Amino acid sequence: MDTSQLAEWLKKNKTPCENLLKRRFFYSNSFDIYGGAAGLFDYGPPGCALKVQIENLWRQHFIIFDEMLEVSCSCITPYSVLKASGHVDRFTDLMVTDVVNGECYRADKYLEDVIECVMNTLKGKTVTDNVNAKNAALMKLGCDDLEKIRNLVGNMSLEDVEKFIEENKITSPIGNALSKPYPFNLMFETTIGPKSKQKGGINSVVYLRPETAQGIFVNFAKLLESNGGKMPFASAQIGLGFRNEISPRNGLLRVREFLMAEVEYFVHPKNKTHVRYHEFKHVVLSLLPRGTQEKGESTLTKMSVEDAINKGVIANEALGYFLARTSLFLEKCGILPQGLRFRQHMSDEMAHYACDCWDAEILTSYGWIEVVGHADRMAYDLTAHSKATNTQLNASQRYPEPITVEKVVPTYNRSLIGKTFKDKHVKLLAILDNLSQEQANKLEEELSGSGSTVIDAGDGLQFVVTRDMLSFKTVKSVVCEETFTPAVIEPSFGMGRLIFCILEHSYRVRPAQAQQEERTYVAIKPQIAPIKCCLLPLSSKDAFTPLISKVQRQMDIHGLSYKIDSTGASIGKRYARTDEIGIPFAVTVDFQSVNDGTVTIRERDSMQQIRIEADVVSELIADLISGKTTWGDVTKAHPLFTQQEV
Amino acid sequence: MDTSQLAEWLKKNKTPCENLLKRRFFYSNSFDIYGGAAGLFDYGPPGCALKVQIENLWRQHFIIFDEMLEVSCSCITPYSVLKASGHVDRFTDLMVTDVVNGECYRADKYLEDVIECVMNTLKGKTVTDNVNAKNAALMKLGCDDLEKIRNLVGNMSLEDVEKFIEENKITSPIGNALSKPYPFNLMFETTIGPKSKQKGGINSVVYLRPETAQGIFVNFAKLLESNGGKMPFASAQIGLGFRNEISPRNGLLRVREFLMAEVEYFVHPKNKTHVRYHEFKHVVLSLLPRGTQEKGESTLTKMSVEDAINKGVIANEALGYFLARTSLFLEKCGILPQGLRFRQHMSDEMAHYACDCWDAEILTSYGWIEVVGHADRMAYDLTAHSKATNTQLNASQRYPEPITVEKVVPTYNRSLIGKTFKDKHVKLLAILDNLSQEQANKLEEELSGSGSTVIDAGDGLQFVVTRDMLSFKTVKSVVCEETFTPAVIEPSFGMGRLIFCILEHSYRVRPAQAQQEERTYVAIKPQIAPIKCCLLPLSSKDAFTPLISKVQRQMDIHGLSYKIDSTGASIGKRYARTDEIGIPFAVTVDFQSVNDGTVTIRERDSMQQIRIEADVVSELIADLISGKTTWGDVTKAHPLFTQQEV
Repeated sequence: MDTSQLAEWLKKNKTPCENLLKRRFFYSNSFDIYGGAAGLFDYGPPGCALKVQIENLWRQHFIIFDEMLEVSCSCITPYSVLKASGHVDRFTDLMVTDVVNGECYRADKYLEDVIECVMNTLKGKTVTDNVNAKNAALMKLGCDDLEKIRNLVGNMSLEDVEKFIEENKITSPIGNALSKPYPFNLMFETTIGPKSKQKGGINSVVYLRPETAQGIFVNFAKLLESNGGKMPFASAQIGLGFRNEISPRNGLLRVREFLMAEVEYFVHPKNKTHVRYHEFKHVVLSLLPRGTQEKGESTLTKMSVEDAINKGVIANEALGYFLARTSLFLEKCGILPQGLRFRQHMSDEMAHYACDCWDAEILTSYGWIEVVGHADRMAYDLTAHSKATNTQLNASQRYPEPITVEKVVPTYNRSLIGKTFKDKHVKLLAILDNLSQEQANKLEEELSGSGSTVIDAGDGLQFVVTRDMLSFKTVKSVVCEETFTPAVIEPSFGMGRLIFCILEHSYRVRPAQAQQEERTYVAIKPQIAPIKCCLLPLSSKDAFTPLISKVQRQMDIHGLSYKIDSTGASIGKRYARTDEIGIPFAVTVDFQSVNDGTVTIRERDSMQQIRIEADVVSELIADLISGKTTWGDVTKAHPLFTQQEV
Repeated sequence: MDTSQLAEWLKKNKTPCENLLKRRFFYSNSFDIYGGAAGLFDYGPPGCALKVQIENLWRQHFIIFDEMLEVSCSCITPYSVLKASGHVDRFTDLMVTDVVNGECYRADKYLEDVIECVMNTLKGKTVTDNVNAKNAALMKLGCDDLEKIRNLVGNMSLEDVEKFIEENKITSPIGNALSKPYPFNLMFETTIGPKSKQKGGINSVVYLRPETAQGIFVNFAKLLESNGGKMPFASAQIGLGFRNEISPRNGLLRVREFLMAEVEYFVHPKNKTHVRYHEFKHVVLSLLPRGTQEKGESTLTKMSVEDAINKGVIANEALGYFLARTSLFLEKCGILPQGLRFRQHMSDEMAHYACDCWDAEILTSYGWIEVVGHADRMAYDLTAHSKATNTQLNASQRYPEPITVEKVVPTYNRSLIGKTFKDKHVKLLAILDNLSQEQANKLEEELSGSGSTVIDAGDGLQFVVTRDMLSFKTVKSVVCEETFTPAVIEPSFGMGRLIFCILEHSYRVRPAQAQQEERTYVAIKPQIAPIKCCLLPLSSKDAFTPLISKVQRQMDIHGLSYKIDSTGASIGKRYARTDEIGIPFAVTVDFQSVNDGTVTIRERDSMQQIRIEADVVSELIADLISGKTTWGDVTKAHPLFTQQEV
């Protein structure tokens, strides 16, 4: 299956897949007996078990593999922290409201919908309840132009959105006028402590964090110390994030409360390398760089990380390292390679803190969606928190060899300065002590030239400084280490989205056969399967109980999760049920078992069975889960078993 | 060490232990570069890793062992859900405020403090800055009475608190008058969706959940279906809870955001059993039943679960089962048995939803604190949600044998009723169809007696019903299953508190020796140790690198977390550092290693070392972690190694 065939397959199976996932309670709308709550989802038993498995795999693949410092920080975050990080001012979406009934719409998504409606009208499809579907101005543009505009809407400025709505006379779906677009902050706000209820006040305003990253940034100094002061290093966090989305939709894809897994890799801003880069530079990625998109194209470029870096497609080794690691992780999760691409953000598309960003996008029934962001946040956040708290958030790194640096430093005639400027002279000295090298050079130039210069101290205060008060000299010094504010490379995973993608990519259909209708199931990889094994007594006869209990105890010892299905349903029906929740192996105790102590193991995807001693079944399944052995190997060592007598 | 010696040891080491934990960043106040946020804590690398280990152990011990249905539900919870559950009205603490400066105090904790101050004054200790320390009315009572009152304050009603403050003229710490006590709701409130900002309205008010349990209750029907309709069963959830504590304090013990792990065991209300009870009925617990406390005593009763149930101390098998399982879990975590007791709640102490509750309390430097609640919530929650949503939240269970039940059902003279009551008759029939057995019997009695009766339909509407309209007959039917609203037994763990207790119980001091000062460390059990192994090259010489890398790769394969300490510090100092963060094993590569490929393993608690082939070291450590082998066995098989050459 190539990418376009996969896209078609996913679309075709969208509804049956979703039905299976809801029916088997992988997830559901939260509080649905109360009518549900938009944008909130609960994971039921198979979905939650899958989530736990993915968390553990992520921890193993990223945190343990790279000795990252894992932390767990508060969701509740004070105003001052998110003010400094820029989220209070800039973590917004543009919103428009129906001026008559007050309904709210996220501007970009609403305009995308409207354009889609108009395109449908032009194509002769007419089923829509949005009055804009026959918008004359838009219809004039034609499908090709509309498609281009639709792709741009997400990055439009407030002014552009306003202009677009006005010029094209776009209304609410029922024809009412729309308000001007305005930014709506997406953070949930609450107050902490009892005092607020009494007196109010900005100090007690808190938000639910929109990302886990800030908790890591504010702990930077302690983390660096935990790492023995060594740079570079990474910290990571798996935890909840919250966004008060204007219009949540698309199931698990745009929600208001979600699990994130974020890595913050702190590195020298001018030397963005990674110690294990060489182990992964050969990984081949499907890339969609900014340049390609600017040409209006979407052809993927397949190249190794090393090539991409050499050709300047990927900016640095650290970024390349994490793109490679993410790609390998997604493969372990069962994401199909033809449904994965790495798309670079356009320059007007990035979050307020980033200078470069590559999204791992996965193909779903809703199209390509962002699942992992890889942002280069530069020193943006550490600088912001350092400034807001007047704290040093720096690291230092020894040079391989001590280096000699030249520095221009002022020398004063203190008594002359004192006499001339009286009580103001302290202010002047403070300014001179804090000159940048550039400023110092400029002053020296002016003093050497005209013999005097004017230094502006702000607040209308100016100092006329003359050559006899001040000169500069160049000082050489030997420096062993450099102090700097680290840059940050951030791989950030939306775990809910990933789970949804894994489920869509794992969905399978077994065609109808002679005596059996079509059956659907999820072929989740054994390592992350929600439950590892199903134990099935062939019937509810007591004779099967001792062997089932025996296998159960062994499963406990191996720490394998299992489910016992001793209902009266036929063995075929029960296999179908275990397939539906993605259980990779089923162990059946039948009549032969009672006689000779053997049981059968059935593998989900091939539906093949073998027969082995009950004593060794748990260990074999543990090996299949950990990848020590494969089902292929097992069937080579054991003859296939065909059918239980019933 | 007995209980009182342990109490003393914990108090004595409170500050050094806390210093170690903060210094090594097990945890710290959140946002401390911003001045911190009361009641919010971050877990740093060793604390977070410990948390992850405990979560996994909990999942293994409870969820996987008992095939529980794990779910993961939203923290954000609509008003209507928490209104129905009783939390909007009753999840409150009593608060008093200083009427002059608005400072807020949690009433019970404040009165406890005041009483403590007065007791200190009476005992001749005078250091306190609370003017109530010399409160004349309280001083008159004497220490014994004051101590009794202090133990009761937590359960005082609003009226009692008000009376106590008035009668004893208690003021704020600086002598200002206090407000009357009033209930303060502990839930964090926010609004969801964009509309609220425009229009307001009760529907968009949401809270951060105060417990994870409600997410399970509202999903009960789907969970029962996931379990194939079978009762009893348990569902579990590990997730965040939030409480806007009035006065957070005591480090991790009273916080505003915390990790909980809750089990909801759904069981027949009249048959609270558990299928694996017999495996654990012999577990011996230290109990502090209600009766003992009512006598003002605190002597612990040691008895097996079975004995406790037979003697009526523990109410039922299901509750006993979970108390036993909790006790075993805490033991696995390293909680010292003499620092663990199970205390039954007093009847006026329980949460609004519970009819019985046993707390697992652990001895800390702050005294005994509740870490695990085991509440019998009856059918309280399911009934409340069922009523609020008009949904059936029932289960059914087959009787072992079908039973015959008698039921009184009405038979009507429909035409007479229709003629008599005209358009109102439908209302009467609806009432008659929904009579309880009791109501039906009462009506039949009246009709047989006086020949007529009056049925009140509300809204001023009354039906005079006569014998010829209505009679009742007794119908026998064979019933195979019973429908009921399940009762719930809930073990609920405060994971942050547990982590704190584990750390305090694991804290150890190595006495000062000839050339070495006193050293402190945490003897966390290998299975839950934050990091499993430290890899130490004896010096920073390049010769050690290949062997370190080799061991590292093997650690990756075994999924073991490790830390490499290649700093220039002496090997002894580096061992001390690994001890401080609880790493149980250290592998050292020394000069001999380079020659013969062997390395040393050092065990943290005994400080003993052995020397083995580098190739097998990871597997051996994996076996030590999983408990397949013990350090005692290892030292029997290998001679002790004494000292590296440096």
